[in-house]
Amino acid sequence: MNITLIGAGSMGAGFVKQLTAAGHQVRVTSRDLAKAEALAVAHAGATAVAPADALGDSLVVIVATSYADAVPALKALGSLEGRIVIDITNPLTADYMGLTLGHATSAAEEIAKALPGAQVVKAFNTVLAQVLAEGPAFPNGQTVPVFYAGDDERAKQTVRALAESIGFQPVDAGGLKNARYLEPVAGLNIYFAYGAGQGTQIAPTWIRRG
Amino acid sequence: MNITLIGAGSMGAGFVKQLTAAGHQVRVTSRDLAKAEALAVAHAGATAVAPADALGDSLVVIVATSYADAVPALKALGSLEGRIVIDITNPLTADYMGLTLGHATSAAEEIAKALPGAQVVKAFNTVLAQVLAEGPAFPNGQTVPVFYAGDDERAKQTVRALAESIGFQPVDAGGLKNARYLEPVAGLNIYFAYGAGQGTQIAPTWIRRG
Repeated sequence: MNITLIGAGSMGAGFVKQLTAAGHQVRVTSRDLAKAEALAVAHAGATAVAPADALGDSLVVIVATSYADAVPALKALGSLEGRIVIDITNPLTADYMGLTLGHATSAAEEIAKALPGAQVVKAFNTVLAQVLAEGPAFPNGQTVPVFYAGDDERAKQTVRALAESIGFQPVDAGGLKNARYLEPVAGLNIYFAYGAGQGTQIAPTWIRRG
Repeated sequence: MNITLIGAGSMGAGFVKQLTAAGHQVRVTSRDLAKAEALAVAHAGATAVAPADALGDSLVVIVATSYADAVPALKALGSLEGRIVIDITNPLTADYMGLTLGHATSAAEEIAKALPGAQVVKAFNTVLAQVLAEGPAFPNGQTVPVFYAGDDERAKQTVRALAESIGFQPVDAGGLKNARYLEPVAGLNIYFAYGAGQGTQIAPTWIRRG
């Protein structure tokens, strides 16, 4: 496949490595052309090009810039009519700990606001009822996680112990604000179960290496 | 642990089963007390109680109603000062395919709006650069997924083929609007990697049973 890649940072470098290894032709462009050239020198199948020359006959454009730079960098390529743009960006805040757009509150935060004095902890919202009913043991020794997020450390420890007592794997997901992440995780879970028809014995989890 | 549970629907029933099996004392209340009573009859360790009597000396209150009912149902218990409230709700739309609050747009949708004519597909945003660099093979035969969301079927098939060509597991995540889910999934991934200090060889995935 002929692919244009915008960005020669860490995601860009990863794409050049993996795409050229798979035999794709990659045209790399970057605000810093020297970085694109360094990637091209290191990987046969990759060439460094200026933004105006970057489109060529590429079917696919991968935008591996920051979200703030994505639209200007894409527009610098010229008309994208009929091209496929793969948006890999996340609209992160400067400290990486939040999103700059998309969501502004969560059910958990609204509930906490309505109940001053109560220690609200978001938890179990990514566990489908059918999974809760049959329990946390999944194939290959996997245990369904319970993500919990809250602002009171003692309350969180209690919820952790509670999840553990019924066999689930408790996972600390940070402050109550992170319900803004957990609720969309559940949204995707419900989409997979019902919207995509995968059924209800599914659960989101995280995998690790090394 | 002494626990108050609001709601006798499918999540409520699952909690009664799992919590009583683990030896917890559960006070179940519900708008429909007959359903709470049916659960109490079926599970030693559970008792059905009216909302005004539901709090008792419970340390923890689990709210297993819909999000719309959560605050009124919690307030019906009386003062929650010092109690731990576990919010398991998701603010779902009537068709379960969206959230009613929290997020209103996504980077992918903004990019698509700015580039009419281009087929924008959200993908790879949940893959950390360090995971991309080292490749998709995780322990125990696990393969890192690439979730892709878009509104053009042909563009999605191309992105699917691209992800597959470099060894990742492509997962259809629906229309471009579901970038509103995928970007927060990435937000949580980045929180785990950097905020919680778990390191960068991690990835979100879904597990299945049965």
